Amino acid sequence: MTEVGVGLIGFGTVGAGVVEALQRNGDVLAQRLGIRLVLRGVADLDLARDRGVTVDPGLLTRDAAAVVGNPAVQIVIELVGGLTAARDIVLEALRLGKPVVTANKALLAEKAEEIFGAAAERKVELGFEASVAGGIPIIRAVREGLVANRIVRIYGILNGTCNYILTRMERDQMTFEHALKEAQAAGYAEADPALDIDGVDTAHKAVILASLASGVPVPMAAAHVEGIRGLPKADIEYARGLGYRIKLLAVIRHDDGGLEVRVHPTLIPADHMLASVSGVFNAVMVEGDLTGPTAYYGRGAGRLPTASAVISDVAEVARTLVGGARQRVPVFTRPPGEVRLREIGEIETRYYLRCSLLDRPGVLGRLTTVLGRHGVSIASVLQKEVHAGRHVPVVIVTHPARERDFTAAVREIDAMDVVGAKSLCLRIEGFGPEK
Amino acid sequence: MTEVGVGLIGFGTVGAGVVEALQRNGDVLAQRLGIRLVLRGVADLDLARDRGVTVDPGLLTRDAAAVVGNPAVQIVIELVGGLTAARDIVLEALRLGKPVVTANKALLAEKAEEIFGAAAERKVELGFEASVAGGIPIIRAVREGLVANRIVRIYGILNGTCNYILTRMERDQMTFEHALKEAQAAGYAEADPALDIDGVDTAHKAVILASLASGVPVPMAAAHVEGIRGLPKADIEYARGLGYRIKLLAVIRHDDGGLEVRVHPTLIPADHMLASVSGVFNAVMVEGDLTGPTAYYGRGAGRLPTASAVISDVAEVARTLVGGARQRVPVFTRPPGEVRLREIGEIETRYYLRCSLLDRPGVLGRLTTVLGRHGVSIASVLQKEVHAGRHVPVVIVTHPARERDFTAAVREIDAMDVVGAKSLCLRIEGFGPEK
Repeated sequence: MTEVGVGLIGFGTVGAGVVEALQRNGDVLAQRLGIRLVLRGVADLDLARDRGVTVDPGLLTRDAAAVVGNPAVQIVIELVGGLTAARDIVLEALRLGKPVVTANKALLAEKAEEIFGAAAERKVELGFEASVAGGIPIIRAVREGLVANRIVRIYGILNGTCNYILTRMERDQMTFEHALKEAQAAGYAEADPALDIDGVDTAHKAVILASLASGVPVPMAAAHVEGIRGLPKADIEYARGLGYRIKLLAVIRHDDGGLEVRVHPTLIPADHMLASVSGVFNAVMVEGDLTGPTAYYGRGAGRLPTASAVISDVAEVARTLVGGARQRVPVFTRPPGEVRLREIGEIETRYYLRCSLLDRPGVLGRLTTVLGRHGVSIASVLQKEVHAGRHVPVVIVTHPARERDFTAAVREIDAMDVVGAKSLCLRIEGFGPEK
Repeated sequence: MTEVGVGLIGFGTVGAGVVEALQRNGDVLAQRLGIRLVLRGVADLDLARDRGVTVDPGLLTRDAAAVVGNPAVQIVIELVGGLTAARDIVLEALRLGKPVVTANKALLAEKAEEIFGAAAERKVELGFEASVAGGIPIIRAVREGLVANRIVRIYGILNGTCNYILTRMERDQMTFEHALKEAQAAGYAEADPALDIDGVDTAHKAVILASLASGVPVPMAAAHVEGIRGLPKADIEYARGLGYRIKLLAVIRHDDGGLEVRVHPTLIPADHMLASVSGVFNAVMVEGDLTGPTAYYGRGAGRLPTASAVISDVAEVARTLVGGARQRVPVFTRPPGEVRLREIGEIETRYYLRCSLLDRPGVLGRLTTVLGRHGVSIASVLQKEVHAGRHVPVVIVTHPARERDFTAAVREIDAMDVVGAKSLCLRIEGFGPEK
């Protein structure tokens, strides 16, 4: 049977998963591919740690460049992460004409033009199924399964850490801080959770999906990003009372007017499919103009689910190598200038607004007058507690409004003498065509 | 730009959708592929009917063989359906070495060895994404996205007609007959709905998925098939009271002990993701040994969603043609004898059993004694109404039991003098590892 040599750079959690999966399912895979994938080198700075899998010690090295340069290595798997060493490894492999498979969403999102450009220039394949939504074959679905469609909208729950925290906050009435501690204790959140809870990791993935949907490399700067850090428990409760759950949602909309990419805590109807995605699971809804809504669900992270995605790319690349063809599906098909990136001020959506108002006659009227003057129309108002003469929370749900009008109204509201603490604003996604 | 010639056989609903999609999105597709797909012939027996799309009259013919044989046609799309003309067309195209794309689940399920055998023998590609779950790229997900996994279980809601009927029965308290009429009026059910409501269409799709999961062609005879025809409205109500919904579910389980394929109305927990799949939508859960559960959702039928799937295969095949490689992913990778097919009597599951019992002291005890003697243990009993001295419905939910033991017990129960109408039995799927 034809053999294809694979070099693994980065022998951490996912790297060990790749080794384990190749050992466990190598025979099935060889049957399916007609090709045997053979590990020809494994590089990591830490050679001592026990990963729970056994690798021929002769394959292990601290020298990544030696593995990349090894003539017996035909495909390079980059699982180092980050933007520095990983970048060098990927670019060097591509320079040598070796296909690369990576799970590095940060690198692909932050250096899209450089990395995809290098791959395109040398006509070398770059697999990145594992970079978005772990074990869910979402990249393949968008690039190949829906290839005949204009991708109109994508909604994603793409960060298991945030979804775990939000699930615990909702189900167990925890504060954000408490739920974060639980996530860290369960191994679902890093000691420094910033990348996750500030929405940056979700934005990396959203930018990759937006690039695929639009056909142009979308810069990270085009994404509007808000995380869930410090989200008040009270708003999860109020949202629930209104028939919503709060999820950290990536929203991508693409039409003739442009492309919008945003990540923020979002109220979604409790009976919507995405609302039932709980814990560390991920889900992505992709709407094509031909298919209508489609959805994909599964584990978005973890040793073996992510290894499954990595190996699916290695398998695809190996087939192409053996078949003699090169870079069968170009990633970017349109010049960057062809797609207009929409500013956050331009978007239209519904809003959840919680204000702290002095409980005095006429105050609510003044607030609604301000909203009205900015063209923001109110769908419902909820006043939870009444304490005459004190500040009370008032929750307002709006009809679709333009972001810049809404924020101008809120700025004016927050400057009012009858308003206490700064208002809290969240966006609502109804998944209808109108918003 | 390189052109690839496409011949379309069968200009019905989906065929017209393919033409419309190529006209509407041909430019986007050409950008993504670097290849332009060009329609070079369209065959149908009815040339007069208005399909809502315009085709160059010079391309239209009643002669399918002429389109298949046209040297300018490099890929043949078969959308004739059925087992006779479609079989001839597919085999003739393969004989000529032309890749075939088909949505014909019946042909692939009933003639798997012949059709896939002919493709393998001539090393010609055969695309069938559109044969299962319409616009959902499920074939690609199983064959490529999850290629590194042993596929352990698949659950599918694969027939929109049945799901529409069950949804109407549950939401609007309709009888089966009434809901079927509504489905027919809405265009979701054929005048002769037998293939759908008797579970055969679902079984065709299940057999295709089971073949992909196991790597061997699974004969239709291996599938246990029950439809939803005449399902009593009362049982939907009772199931709801117990926290379940009834879906026509395809269940595929694959382990070292063998492969089981069954299609039957099934109670599933109301809070499970598949329970929320309503109307004509389809959904498939696929559990890989590496990924754990993954799920896929979308429109399972219809002009444009199915066209999207057809074109995704045409695109894939066109890339392979232009790249010079052939049949990159073999469908069957193991000799048929290697997988043991499990008989329905061998399966283990939980059951819902509704008996009609004379309301008299000791009767329920006699019934539970019979079940116990056959090794069937009871999880809960629900007696809805009480009319002393008359027959009353008693609903029993069992713990996991072996099918042959359960059916033997029911046979004995139905022969008891205190039992009225024949008992109604349904299977319950809890999606846990134990059942």
